[in-house]
Amino acid sequence: MAEELVGNVLVGQSGGPTAVINASVAGVISEALNHAAIEEIYGSLNGVLGILHEDFIDLAGQSQQAIRALRHTPGAALGTCRYKLKKQQDFDRVLEVFKAHNIRYFFYVGGNDSQDTADKISKVAQAQGYELRVIGIPKTIDNDLPTTDHCPGYGSVIKYIATTVRELACDNAAMGQSDLVQIVEVMGRSAGWIAAGASLAKRRDHPHDPPHIILLPELAFNPEKFGNEVKRVLSREKYCLVVVGEGLVDVDGNYVTAEATTDAFGHARLGGVGEYLREVLETQVPGVKTRVVSLGNAQRAAAHCSSKTDNDEAFLAGQAAVKAALNGETDKMITLVRGDTEQYTCETGLAPLADIANGVKKLPREWINEDGVSMNFQFLRYAQPLIQGEVVVPFDSGLPVFATLSKSTVDKQLPGYET
Amino acid sequence: MAEELVGNVLVGQSGGPTAVINASVAGVISEALNHAAIEEIYGSLNGVLGILHEDFIDLAGQSQQAIRALRHTPGAALGTCRYKLKKQQDFDRVLEVFKAHNIRYFFYVGGNDSQDTADKISKVAQAQGYELRVIGIPKTIDNDLPTTDHCPGYGSVIKYIATTVRELACDNAAMGQSDLVQIVEVMGRSAGWIAAGASLAKRRDHPHDPPHIILLPELAFNPEKFGNEVKRVLSREKYCLVVVGEGLVDVDGNYVTAEATTDAFGHARLGGVGEYLREVLETQVPGVKTRVVSLGNAQRAAAHCSSKTDNDEAFLAGQAAVKAALNGETDKMITLVRGDTEQYTCETGLAPLADIANGVKKLPREWINEDGVSMNFQFLRYAQPLIQGEVVVPFDSGLPVFATLSKSTVDKQLPGYET
Repeated sequence: MAEELVGNVLVGQSGGPTAVINASVAGVISEALNHAAIEEIYGSLNGVLGILHEDFIDLAGQSQQAIRALRHTPGAALGTCRYKLKKQQDFDRVLEVFKAHNIRYFFYVGGNDSQDTADKISKVAQAQGYELRVIGIPKTIDNDLPTTDHCPGYGSVIKYIATTVRELACDNAAMGQSDLVQIVEVMGRSAGWIAAGASLAKRRDHPHDPPHIILLPELAFNPEKFGNEVKRVLSREKYCLVVVGEGLVDVDGNYVTAEATTDAFGHARLGGVGEYLREVLETQVPGVKTRVVSLGNAQRAAAHCSSKTDNDEAFLAGQAAVKAALNGETDKMITLVRGDTEQYTCETGLAPLADIANGVKKLPREWINEDGVSMNFQFLRYAQPLIQGEVVVPFDSGLPVFATLSKSTVDKQLPGYET
Repeated sequence: MAEELVGNVLVGQSGGPTAVINASVAGVISEALNHAAIEEIYGSLNGVLGILHEDFIDLAGQSQQAIRALRHTPGAALGTCRYKLKKQQDFDRVLEVFKAHNIRYFFYVGGNDSQDTADKISKVAQAQGYELRVIGIPKTIDNDLPTTDHCPGYGSVIKYIATTVRELACDNAAMGQSDLVQIVEVMGRSAGWIAAGASLAKRRDHPHDPPHIILLPELAFNPEKFGNEVKRVLSREKYCLVVVGEGLVDVDGNYVTAEATTDAFGHARLGGVGEYLREVLETQVPGVKTRVVSLGNAQRAAAHCSSKTDNDEAFLAGQAAVKAALNGETDKMITLVRGDTEQYTCETGLAPLADIANGVKKLPREWINEDGVSMNFQFLRYAQPLIQGEVVVPFDSGLPVFATLSKSTVDKQLPGYET
C-alpha cells in the first residue's frame, strides 16, 4: 500500500461526449466516497478550461439520486472542451490552481488528446515537486486508444448503429421493389471501428442481411469499384444498405469530403460523406434511388439504446482509477483487459499515459474480409460481447429522464486567468 | 347485424412503412380468426402489386410467435409499394383476382393515396355487383389524414425524435463552449406534424430546453429571419438546436430543396434540407459551427423507441376494421376518435374513404406560437398522450429481434398480368 496522500479529488471530462462518459464520473464519485484520505470531490466544468478558470463544482454534495441518474445520462454532465493547453503559462496556472485547492488526485475522462493533456499535467507536477496522482479514464466512441482492448463508449455506439441498421433492414426490404440504396453515415475520424460495428446487425446464417457494404477509412475509396459493388448487391437483394465512416479517404489519403476548417487540435472537421456517396451513385449507377441517414451526434448520445456491458465497464473504469491512485499509481490510464476464456470477461489494467497520448489503434486489416467491404468472424468475436445487455433508462411522460447536477460552485481562491 | 358474408380476407400494406404498421396487420389477423364467416386470411405482397400478380401468402398458417412478433416489427412485413392503379384494366384485374380467390374482405393499411386506391377498388366492385367489403386502416407518420384525430405511426415517430432531441440536448450542452448549431432534419412532406412533435422534448418549466427553433412547412422560410433567430438563441444558450421538416418551402411556396425527381404519385422527392440550412447559416451567421443529424428512414423504423399507446391503437385499428366489415360496413376507413375527458381515451370510428382520399390535414395555425418557431400548449396537449408508454422489444445477443413471416404462397388461379 502506498503512503497515504490526503487531499482533494478533481475529475474532468474532455472531448466529444459518449453515452457512458458520465458513468465513469459516477464511478469516480462512488469509489472516492469510500476513502478517508479523500476530503473533497470536485468536478471541473468544461475540462481543463474549468481548471484554468477555477470553475469547480462540489460533487460529494450532489444527491444520490443525481449520481445514480448520471449512470444513464448522455452528454458530459460536467461539460467538456476541446481547448488545448498550449503554453508553459497554462501548465503553471493548472498547478497553481491545484495547489490552491489541495487537489492531490486528478482524474481525466477522455480520448487521445485528453490523455496527452493529463500526461503533461502530471509531468509538470513532478517537475515542480508537487505530489499529485493523475489517472486517465479512457473514453471514445472511436475505439482508437492504444493499450486498451476497447474503449468505454464504443459498445454503446455500435449497439445503437446495429439496431438502427436492423430496423432499416425491415423498412428497406418492405420498400425494395425497385433499386434502393440506403446509406448510413456514421462517425469515425481516423479508424473504421464504428462503421465496422454495423456488421453486428447481420444475423448469423443470414447472408442476405444488411449491411451489404461497409466503407472503411482503412481502404482507399474507389468510386467505380463502389458502383460495381452496389450494382452487384442490387441485382441480388433489390436493395443495398451501405454503412460509411465519415473518415473515408481517396487513393491519395485525403478525406473525400474535408471541409476547409479544422478543430483546435488540427483535426479536419468532417461530415456529409453520405451526400457525397449519393452524388457518386448518380454517376456510377444512374437512376438509382438513394436515401441517406446521417446519425451525427445522435449516435454518441443514444443512451436509450446503450450497452449495459459498456456502461458497467465505464463505471468500473472510474472506480478503478480512484483505487489505482489511492494505491500510489500516477501518470497512467486505466485500460480494459479482456480475459483469455471463451466466455467474455473484462477487468481493468494500467498503462503509462505517454503510451496513449496521440496514439491511434487501427482496425486490424486481417479483420476485414477479402472483399474489403465486410468484416470477418475475428471482428465479430471481438465486438459482439461489447453490445450485450440493455441499459434501462427511466422514462417519464413518454420520454427518458436524465440527470442534472446542481451547480454548487466551489469558492475561487485566485485572481482570474485569461485563456 | 349485417347478413353474413362468407369468404376470404385479404390484407395489404402500402406507402412508406412505420414502426407500427405491422401491428395493424396483427390486429386484422387476430380478429379475423374469431369469425366463422372468414375462411382464409391472405396477405398481399407489396400492396396492390401483389393483387395484380396474385402474390398472396397464407397468414392464418403463420406461427403465433410470428404474429406476436409482428406487433413490434418495423417495416412492412407484407412488403409495400408506391404503384398506382392507373387504367381501368388494372381495376378489372383486381376484381378478377378477388373473384378467383373469393376475397370478400379487403383491408388496406396505408395513407392518403392508399385509401384512394381502396376507395376506387370498392367502387369498381360495387359497379360490377361483386359483394366486397373494403375497410381502410390509417397509417402514416405524417399524421396528415383527415377525419381521424391522429394516425397510427405518428406517436412512435415523434417519441423517437423527441427522445433523440433530449439526448442531443445533453450532448450539445456539454459541448456548448462556443457557438454550436445542431440541426435535426425530420420527415414531413406537406405538414409540420413531425417537426412539431419534437417540441415534446422540452421539459415543462424549462424554457431553455431545446428544440429552440422548429421550422415548419406551414410557414414560408426566410433565411434572414432564421439567421436572426439563431443569433438570438446562441447569445442566450451558447448552442441552438433546430428541428426542420423536410417539406420546408420558400415565400413562393416552392420546396427549398426539391430534387428533380418525383415519385409515382407525382410528389417531389425531398431530402437534404439540413445541409441546405447549414449553407444558409454560413452566410447568415458566419463562423458558426453547424452539425446536422438527418434521421431519414430510421425515424419511421425505430421500433426500439416506439410508443405503446401508438402501437396499441394500431393493433386496435386492425381489429376494428375486421369487426366493421363483419358488421356490413364497406368503403370506409377506421378513424381514431379522442374522448372528451381530461384523461386521454381513444376509440375507433368510421369515415367514408372518399373523405380521406388525397385530403391533407394541416397542422392548425393556432397551435403555432406567435414567434413561428415553437408550439403552444394546445399542440402539446394534443401530442403528449400519443407518446405514452414504451413498447418492449425483445433483444437477443444485444440486438432487437424482429418477425419474419414464412412466405407460404397461395396457388395462383389466373394467367400472369403485365404491370
